[in-house]
Amino acid sequence: MSGFHENEGIIVIAATNRLDTLDEALLRPGRFDRHIEIGLPDVKGRYEILKLHSSNKPLANNVSLMELAQQTVYFSGAKLENLMNEAAILAAKRNSGKIEKADIERAFYTVIAGAEKKDRSTIADIDRRITAIHEAGHALITKLIAPENIVSRITIIPSTKGAGGFSMNIPPDRMYFKKVDMENSIRIALAGRAAEEIIFGEENITTGASNDIERATEILLNMVRRFGMKQQTGLLNYDVLYRNGIRQVQNEWIEECKKTMDKLYSEVKEKLLEKKELLEAIATRLLEVETIGENELNELIEQYKKKSENAA
Amino acid sequence: MSGFHENEGIIVIAATNRLDTLDEALLRPGRFDRHIEIGLPDVKGRYEILKLHSSNKPLANNVSLMELAQQTVYFSGAKLENLMNEAAILAAKRNSGKIEKADIERAFYTVIAGAEKKDRSTIADIDRRITAIHEAGHALITKLIAPENIVSRITIIPSTKGAGGFSMNIPPDRMYFKKVDMENSIRIALAGRAAEEIIFGEENITTGASNDIERATEILLNMVRRFGMKQQTGLLNYDVLYRNGIRQVQNEWIEECKKTMDKLYSEVKEKLLEKKELLEAIATRLLEVETIGENELNELIEQYKKKSENAA
Amino acid sequence: MSGFHENEGIIVIAATNRLDTLDEALLRPGRFDRHIEIGLPDVKGRYEILKLHSSNKPLANNVSLMELAQQTVYFSGAKLENLMNEAAILAAKRNSGKIEKADIERAFYTVIAGAEKKDRSTIADIDRRITAIHEAGHALITKLIAPENIVSRITIIPSTKGAGGFSMNIPPDRMYFKKVDMENSIRIALAGRAAEEIIFGEENITTGASNDIERATEILLNMVRRFGMKQQTGLLNYDVLYRNGIRQVQNEWIEECKKTMDKLYSEVKEKLLEKKELLEAIATRLLEVETIGENELNELIEQYKKKSENAA
Amino acid sequence: MSGFHENEGIIVIAATNRLDTLDEALLRPGRFDRHIEIGLPDVKGRYEILKLHSSNKPLANNVSLMELAQQTVYFSGAKLENLMNEAAILAAKRNSGKIEKADIERAFYTVIAGAEKKDRSTIADIDRRITAIHEAGHALITKLIAPENIVSRITIIPSTKGAGGFSMNIPPDRMYFKKVDMENSIRIALAGRAAEEIIFGEENITTGASNDIERATEILLNMVRRFGMKQQTGLLNYDVLYRNGIRQVQNEWIEECKKTMDKLYSEVKEKLLEKKELLEAIATRLLEVETIGENELNELIEQYKKKSENAA
Amino acid sequence: MSGFHENEGIIVIAATNRLDTLDEALLRPGRFDRHIEIGLPDVKGRYEILKLHSSNKPLANNVSLMELAQQTVYFSGAKLENLMNEAAILAAKRNSGKIEKADIERAFYTVIAGAEKKDRSTIADIDRRITAIHEAGHALITKLIAPENIVSRITIIPSTKGAGGFSMNIPPDRMYFKKVDMENSIRIALAGRAAEEIIFGEENITTGASNDIERATEILLNMVRRFGMKQQTGLLNYDVLYRNGIRQVQNEWIEECKKTMDKLYSEVKEKLLEKKELLEAIATRLLEVETIGENELNELIEQYKKKSENAA
Amino acid sequence: MSGFHENEGIIVIAATNRLDTLDEALLRPGRFDRHIEIGLPDVKGRYEILKLHSSNKPLANNVSLMELAQQTVYFSGAKLENLMNEAAILAAKRNSGKIEKADIERAFYTVIAGAEKKDRSTIADIDRRITAIHEAGHALITKLIAPENIVSRITIIPSTKGAGGFSMNIPPDRMYFKKVDMENSIRIALAGRAAEEIIFGEENITTGASNDIERATEILLNMVRRFGMKQQTGLLNYDVLYRNGIRQVQNEWIEECKKTMDKLYSEVKEKLLEKKELLEAIATRLLEVETIGENELNELIEQYKKKSENAA
Repeated sequence: MSGFHENEGIIVIAATNRLDTLDEALLRPGRFDRHIEIGLPDVKGRYEILKLHSSNKPLANNVSLMELAQQTVYFSGAKLENLMNEAAILAAKRNSGKIEKADIERAFYTVIAGAEKKDRSTIADIDRRITAIHEAGHALITKLIAPENIVSRITIIPSTKGAGGFSMNIPPDRMYFKKVDMENSIRIALAGRAAEEIIFGEENITTGASNDIERATEILLNMVRRFGMKQQTGLLNYDVLYRNGIRQVQNEWIEECKKTMDKLYSEVKEKLLEKKELLEAIATRLLEVETIGENELNELIEQYKKKSENAA
Repeated sequence: MSGFHENEGIIVIAATNRLDTLDEALLRPGRFDRHIEIGLPDVKGRYEILKLHSSNKPLANNVSLMELAQQTVYFSGAKLENLMNEAAILAAKRNSGKIEKADIERAFYTVIAGAEKKDRSTIADIDRRITAIHEAGHALITKLIAPENIVSRITIIPSTKGAGGFSMNIPPDRMYFKKVDMENSIRIALAGRAAEEIIFGEENITTGASNDIERATEILLNMVRRFGMKQQTGLLNYDVLYRNGIRQVQNEWIEECKKTMDKLYSEVKEKLLEKKELLEAIATRLLEVETIGENELNELIEQYKKKSENAA
Repeated sequence: MSGFHENEGIIVIAATNRLDTLDEALLRPGRFDRHIEIGLPDVKGRYEILKLHSSNKPLANNVSLMELAQQTVYFSGAKLENLMNEAAILAAKRNSGKIEKADIERAFYTVIAGAEKKDRSTIADIDRRITAIHEAGHALITKLIAPENIVSRITIIPSTKGAGGFSMNIPPDRMYFKKVDMENSIRIALAGRAAEEIIFGEENITTGASNDIERATEILLNMVRRFGMKQQTGLLNYDVLYRNGIRQVQNEWIEECKKTMDKLYSEVKEKLLEKKELLEAIATRLLEVETIGENELNELIEQYKKKSENAA
Repeated sequence: MSGFHENEGIIVIAATNRLDTLDEALLRPGRFDRHIEIGLPDVKGRYEILKLHSSNKPLANNVSLMELAQQTVYFSGAKLENLMNEAAILAAKRNSGKIEKADIERAFYTVIAGAEKKDRSTIADIDRRITAIHEAGHALITKLIAPENIVSRITIIPSTKGAGGFSMNIPPDRMYFKKVDMENSIRIALAGRAAEEIIFGEENITTGASNDIERATEILLNMVRRFGMKQQTGLLNYDVLYRNGIRQVQNEWIEECKKTMDKLYSEVKEKLLEKKELLEAIATRLLEVETIGENELNELIEQYKKKSENAA
Repeated sequence: MSGFHENEGIIVIAATNRLDTLDEALLRPGRFDRHIEIGLPDVKGRYEILKLHSSNKPLANNVSLMELAQQTVYFSGAKLENLMNEAAILAAKRNSGKIEKADIERAFYTVIAGAEKKDRSTIADIDRRITAIHEAGHALITKLIAPENIVSRITIIPSTKGAGGFSMNIPPDRMYFKKVDMENSIRIALAGRAAEEIIFGEENITTGASNDIERATEILLNMVRRFGMKQQTGLLNYDVLYRNGIRQVQNEWIEECKKTMDKLYSEVKEKLLEKKELLEAIATRLLEVETIGENELNELIEQYKKKSENAA
Repeated sequence: MSGFHENEGIIVIAATNRLDTLDEALLRPGRFDRHIEIGLPDVKGRYEILKLHSSNKPLANNVSLMELAQQTVYFSGAKLENLMNEAAILAAKRNSGKIEKADIERAFYTVIAGAEKKDRSTIADIDRRITAIHEAGHALITKLIAPENIVSRITIIPSTKGAGGFSMNIPPDRMYFKKVDMENSIRIALAGRAAEEIIFGEENITTGASNDIERATEILLNMVRRFGMKQQTGLLNYDVLYRNGIRQVQNEWIEECKKTMDKLYSEVKEKLLEKKELLEAIATRLLEVETIGENELNELIEQYKKKSENAA
């Protein structure tokens, strides 16, 4: 690949998803002259990609690809293609020649959370109630601490991907994450467990928070290891230390992570406890209709506000 | 697998049991468009599967597949198929053209615990007595702390899978496990050893609790590592830490696990000690008839209650 | 291996000695329908196996296969076959058409400890004396603390398997080991070293206890790691912890093992010291006749008892 | 490869980028007689290389290859070739037969930071402002503590290599790095984060400093591990220790690195805080024109100085 | 290799030097029926082996194979064959048809220590003197603490195997090693360094003790890890712990080894210091004649004794 | 390779550079009968090798191979061959039919340090001055603490092997290294850095000491790990411990190494500080003439002595 000038007519193109594992020699100038990093598309890019993948699929008039582009923050091109394919399948199942807005909406959640479980008659009441409280916790805390995020869908319908329910959370489309954004993401992740504890008591917290805890730990670890966002651990990149064989971490280090998590959890629990009635109201509504959207959620919050004001 | 639109007539289907070990790139949208996670079947699913696998096997009138579906919580499809095959073999051995309820029952325990050892004449009396006390411990504690579980069979017949005896324990069919459920599972696992200690003394506890301790440790570890259910270790996912090279665990951490186990064990021992007479009664019955079921167990408990009330 | 129903005429049988290393997927229902764990045979099983492997070998009248079955606790089928083959070779060497009881006895010890070293003229006197004291220690402590075990042979004849001598120890045929049994096994293992220290002094303890210490450590480790038999380390299965990456063991943990070993060793030393005269008597007899059996050992103990009583 | 004298007409030439991973035996005298280490070219070498790679590319009169050689400190030969190719492509895109100075300048930044993102209309205002403050921080601190470095370009145009912006920093062409140079490199790396904290507050520091922290950690680690530049860790080469299996690092060691980083960060923050107005002025200018060069940066600094003096 | 009875005419023989690394399944009864461990030959065995390997080599009358057998403690059969071959080569070099006693003696040391370096004219005087003192240290301490060992040869002639000199040390032919024997082996190993320190001072100790320290460490480690000979570390087999993943060793543990080594070294230094004059006398003799044997060593010691007595 | 006596006409010869990694079985007697370790040649050996490799190369009269043999301490045979080849190339470049003394001298330094960089016009003055001070430090400390070493060449001409300069240091030709020799080697290695600190201040120490620190660490580690030359770490061979899985090193251990290095560095700094004027004089001379030899170095030292005496 090196040292010959005569093969000028030949262009070698290569792609990789694991830049970090390539032999450095391959990346040096003189091997592949031009490196093009393809990041996630921005809103314009998403619009173009959606247009491309719906070029051979007739869309109903109520479908706005630009609107869809705005709702699909952090989707890759392939995920967008997947979304349009899924919508087309749903339209075909309806024996319809056109993709309706409703097809796209359903496809949207299928892509993210998996298809809905059809028959829910065998789910125990207690499991449905746990799910409702848990998802209400995620949704409510989002509205309380990160109102710029869109909670477009809360559901207690189990998915084929294994989740008992689901609370959709779309953050604004940004280049950077702030420290407070990352802490809020942790708080939102922990809110399901916090809601369970408030309503059912500490002895009855469930395994349902497993993915939430995993996600919260990952975010916290990134804050510590790569972003220098925790005073205790300072401005070191711990991956660099690790690559250099320094794998000994101070006990206080883990202890500090645990404390941070406990602190964020306590804040969330306190916030939800103040709005316990509203939390239950959202859960109750979920048990009635299984799925609610941004608008209904806001309505429930408004009703609660008015009621509180009247009570005061 | 990527980048060509022309192979539209071809559908690639792949299945895996080890999602966690696949190259992430395989899982991204654009590779396999639709991911379907096949979890354990619910009661309806189990019923359908049982029906499928008995379609070519004539069933006696006393067999109710729906009832069987209710008793086979957390069975996979393959395990259900295995159960029906085993029952068919037993019927064939009886030279019977029909699968009877008794065939299914025996098959049920064979699938779970292995086939029964035929000749028990060479088992030492002390070994039989240890098994009886040990299994009585498991069964009795279940009735005392988790009465919603079904103890459908207690036996001191050794199995070809190596167990000296067996105490069947069917929990309710749920989506989530509560903290208290997990602690009760640990308590039930430890009850065999506790019963041994109560009856034979600390010096005579045996190796028979080996699998119980393994299982109890696994449950406790899950509570700590993935479910954030122990205050001491907090809301961190320790697998995430581990994957990131943080493998140093505080000594206090292990110490805490040990203390929890000791505490749960003490509770179990105390509870069984209060019912020592009943424990012995169950064991005595087991030594007489080798196997007892849910009903007989409940009867023994009732008899004991009446006797206690009369005595009081 | 999965998913096809049509190959119904084909039966796949597989065997393994390392169940723990198989891919779990192979073991799931639907792959190999029936799993049969073949444990060690019980006394009846051993009798049947012995009968099978002597079917083509004429046995003398003084051979009782049932008696032999009783003496071969924890022998596998292959080991039993090996035993009968070895006896047949010995009979053949004698140019005898029949296997005598003596052939089987010699074969028995060959199978366990290896063949005897023929020419012992070059062994130093001090080495013979060390062996005699060491083996007398093993044998005497067995009689003192675990009289239910059979010490069928004590010898100072070196074997081709490298041992300087050998003290046969047959425990009763049981399903479970008690804590006290395991501690006694450790005590018996340590008694060789203890006898050396008593007779020759601490500076002259030898490398001859190497295998004993290895065995004692293995038993103690099992008590701690898998059987929850040590208060200090509690009811955790440490292999589960280890498999989950928790490989940090508290220093106190090792310290505790060391203390336990020291305590058991002290007990053994004290017990042997009380019977020092008897210990020497057994060793003296071994130096005279090289090998003694259960009966002669009991006789020496009886003689000592009488002498002690007379002295008192 | 060894031991034969007769193959005198054959010359074996080999090249490697990973001298450290070769079998030492290959490197010993008698194998490859002459080892030639090809380091980075000095200014004359760079001039010759640039001349070679522009021999078949017509250059406009305003292009000075010697000047370019002076600006490309630490470029390898291949990187220089890459630079000329990139410039030729840009000229071709302009449909120009000659490479202009502007082509080379754009190529220069493309080679280092990647191509510019064309459409910037979708970038959120807050993200643009964060980038401007962050890059202004890097540029300003360079002028304050290492005025011998050239800051030839500051930009808030995102690149296709993933950066939000870019601040070019050319150090003088030297054989050695001093301790103070390395500390200044760390200070410059940390200045982006420091600027963010000053302007937006500690809660709003962002993930944008990720690469900076990685780079700062790498420099600090080199100071400690290979260059003996930290009193606390002394004059040991820790890679030698590591290769010899000594992988235990004192907790105080990591603690010390953290403290050093904190100290350098505090110094930077203090320095920028004193010039907060100037920092904002540079950022404001960046928001207006997206990219500024060395001259404009110096002008902004001069204006600020005069204003300060007038104010005083 | 298992399960077929029909291949009765075939005998499979296998040999291994690494029993510990074989799959255990291979070793189980039923696979290889008979295991024969071939240890080192005893004196009779060595005599027979020597006879075999000299059957086609004419021996001079002054050669006694039985005597040679007595001097070759712990030689394997192959090493004995090697010895006879080496002697035959030496005889052939002498153009002699018969192997003389002198050939065997020289062969003996060649086999153990390597061939002598022919031209010693370029060795620095200081190096010769260091070797002489060092070897005298080994030899003298042997006579002082382990007089049962034979010091058949002390030499300051460097060998082709890299040693500067050599002090032959033949222990008695025993089955077991006592604790005191092992400590004496350590003391003998450390005596070279101790002699250097006494004569040249602590600043001038040399790298010449490298192999001695390695050997001493190995013996000490065996005492600790496998033979339970150190109170501090007790009766545990640390290899068993290690195989079970317990790799954490207490700092005190290493500290204790260091202390033991220091203690043994101090004892040796003290003992040699008392006999410093004799040490120098042996070294002086070595510098004169390069090599001395058991008899001359004993004579030097006797002379010293008489002189001391006269002086007293 | 074993067990057959009939292949007597065949001789198998094998060579290895990695004796430590061979399967031990290969090395046992009976496999390869004779092991010949080929160490580095002594002065006579070097003379013979040089003669061999110049047999087909005409030497000028001013070339003395014996002298060259004396100067090439610790050169292997291959390195000597390499040296003669390099000299022949240099002679050929001069179009000379004979190898002159000057060719050999240049070849000598090329073999050790790499070829000289031809064009030095682009080296910054500060870099030249740093090199001069650094190399003067190495050379001066050698003369002060190890006058038996020959400093045959000090140069500030960069080499193609990457060094900025070079200070040749030939120790006497010995079999053993003393503790004080090893400490002096560390002191000489650290003197470059010490000189930098004295002249330019602590903030301006450079990366130029990187290889020196690596070498010093390697020597210190050998003193500790294999040669038992540090009281703190005692007479243990730490490689033996390591091979046996004991990889935990006490923190005090590393701390002690660091302290030793600091102590040796302080001594060096103090010694150079006393002779600061002389240090600068040597550096100044180097800046003037680029390269000086043993004689000129000694002259500079003499001049300084006289001046100091006059001043006093």
